[in-house]
Amino acid sequence: MARRRRGNTLAEIGEDRLLAGLMSELSSSPEVQVGPGDDCAAIRLGGRDWLWTCDAQIEGTHFDRSWMSARQLGRKAYLVNASDVAAMGGAPRFCLVCITAPSSMARRDVLAMQRGMAAAAAADAAIIVGGNIARAGELGVTVSLLAEAPRSPLLRSGAEPGHAIYVSGRLGDAALGLASLRRDRAAKGLAVRKFREPTPRLIAGRVLADERLASAVMDLSDGLLTDLKRLCDASGVGARVEIPRLPMSRAVRAAGVALALSGGEDYELLCAVPAQREDALMSLRDDLGCSMTRVGVFTRANEGLVLVEADGSTRAARAAGFSHFGSVQRPTR
Amino acid sequence: MARRRRGNTLAEIGEDRLLAGLMSELSSSPEVQVGPGDDCAAIRLGGRDWLWTCDAQIEGTHFDRSWMSARQLGRKAYLVNASDVAAMGGAPRFCLVCITAPSSMARRDVLAMQRGMAAAAAADAAIIVGGNIARAGELGVTVSLLAEAPRSPLLRSGAEPGHAIYVSGRLGDAALGLASLRRDRAAKGLAVRKFREPTPRLIAGRVLADERLASAVMDLSDGLLTDLKRLCDASGVGARVEIPRLPMSRAVRAAGVALALSGGEDYELLCAVPAQREDALMSLRDDLGCSMTRVGVFTRANEGLVLVEADGSTRAARAAGFSHFGSVQRPTR
Repeated sequence: MARRRRGNTLAEIGEDRLLAGLMSELSSSPEVQVGPGDDCAAIRLGGRDWLWTCDAQIEGTHFDRSWMSARQLGRKAYLVNASDVAAMGGAPRFCLVCITAPSSMARRDVLAMQRGMAAAAAADAAIIVGGNIARAGELGVTVSLLAEAPRSPLLRSGAEPGHAIYVSGRLGDAALGLASLRRDRAAKGLAVRKFREPTPRLIAGRVLADERLASAVMDLSDGLLTDLKRLCDASGVGARVEIPRLPMSRAVRAAGVALALSGGEDYELLCAVPAQREDALMSLRDDLGCSMTRVGVFTRANEGLVLVEADGSTRAARAAGFSHFGSVQRPTR
Repeated sequence: MARRRRGNTLAEIGEDRLLAGLMSELSSSPEVQVGPGDDCAAIRLGGRDWLWTCDAQIEGTHFDRSWMSARQLGRKAYLVNASDVAAMGGAPRFCLVCITAPSSMARRDVLAMQRGMAAAAAADAAIIVGGNIARAGELGVTVSLLAEAPRSPLLRSGAEPGHAIYVSGRLGDAALGLASLRRDRAAKGLAVRKFREPTPRLIAGRVLADERLASAVMDLSDGLLTDLKRLCDASGVGARVEIPRLPMSRAVRAAGVALALSGGEDYELLCAVPAQREDALMSLRDDLGCSMTRVGVFTRANEGLVLVEADGSTRAARAAGFSHFGSVQRPTR
């Protein structure tokens, strides 16, 4: 194939339009409970449902080798997949790992990477059952994760006007940590740790699914506004986000709310909660393993994505988070 | 992590030693019927066994974009995984696809890649259920494939001294095709087609498993001698290969037997067949969908890997097929 042909490049059309095109062509089958478009596929195998997802960490796109140790990279490659599973309420069980690595890489780094991955999986009672290693110019780690599905997997498509918008944990830490590492690869602190080692909200996801607390859920990997737009599109709704309510550390607040709105890699949960389930959610908040903060409300689709400032003024939000193609956020390529 | 530390690089230690190190550290679980070291993992999900594998096609390592169309690349990314499934006697059912692509890539090429993959999967009654796309410097396609396992999956570890060595189809075509494409990207013919579009031996694998014809099987991806050495190591045996019996096209024979011994990407099956099952194998040969040729016999481990020439003279074989690290065979990086 030619490196560039007439027609649009990925940079020109962007990730979401590309994925929409890809997804529209896939066929289905009775065993596929949830197909492309959610955080995981859900398939029926031997009489029960499993969640299945894959995600890659690529040198130059997701990380620079000076930003994290091999062990940390292996751990993160697992954790970002576990976050997809958390978003649908599942429990990770089995991983396959595809490593692509330059010949110059040290064996001890590959071993450390695998150890980090295996330890992170073991903490969730999941195990690595196999994998593959191939030579490449760039280091890449692709994890494929199979997880037990809850009775009703959480999807992106169930939000309705009037349902509340909740997010878990805090927003913007990972983006702040990434900015720190880009300035100084020896940077330390909470934000750097959050970038290197996200915390998949597996317990919260499981409780949300089992107690039917949420009408829609996804994980925040590409920034609140970008991902909220995706959830709105999947559900056919709009959203109104109250800026003062966004859960942020003091450092993120000082660095600017844009980090919380558009910073990627938070790996927190974004949830739609029907009004009649909000009390139940609050009564279970000690069982979630993380805080849940109400940051706004879903509206009718024609209202779009609206941001409400502290003084009550509103403005239309433009999703400006990370997109793999055509992005300005992750700046390494 | 540092790009190079004290200690061995992947190029210095080679793929097999690296994998041995990685595999030795993995834990197991009762649901894992077959762990790392075979062509697929086998796991028990919901009361039945599934085969699970992943494999990547990486630009610069596995292919050059001038050698094949996007559609052909997508098809091949599926087929090399189906070959792993064939080697254990399974039937492909579900795929996840992780694409990594440069921003400059044309959208139509990504769509063509997926169409090729989906069409190849559909031919085996398998479907793509989801995936992921991320930006990278090199184009890469990683497929993760779930397949129904036969009652007794075929492993690499069951060959015993005295069992016959069989290979399916013909050897060396893909390596010859690759050599042709490297000389002339417009090269055509059977060998080029075999390189671009391998034929996973799914029917043969299923019959071998169901009829318990083979004591050990693997697929030939890195060249007969390299892969035979792996099967010998897994089974604790040696092997004696009769050069004149190797199934080769006239073109491969003219180009030299090294192509059949060490050329990669044949994606044929390498089988150990106990003497008392050879008649049964021959009686079923019209049901296998491919030829099966007896090329030698397994011996005791201390005899090593021996090649027998037409005049009866013997020499020790040195595995010189493709290794992802420290290789001389696939020359693009």
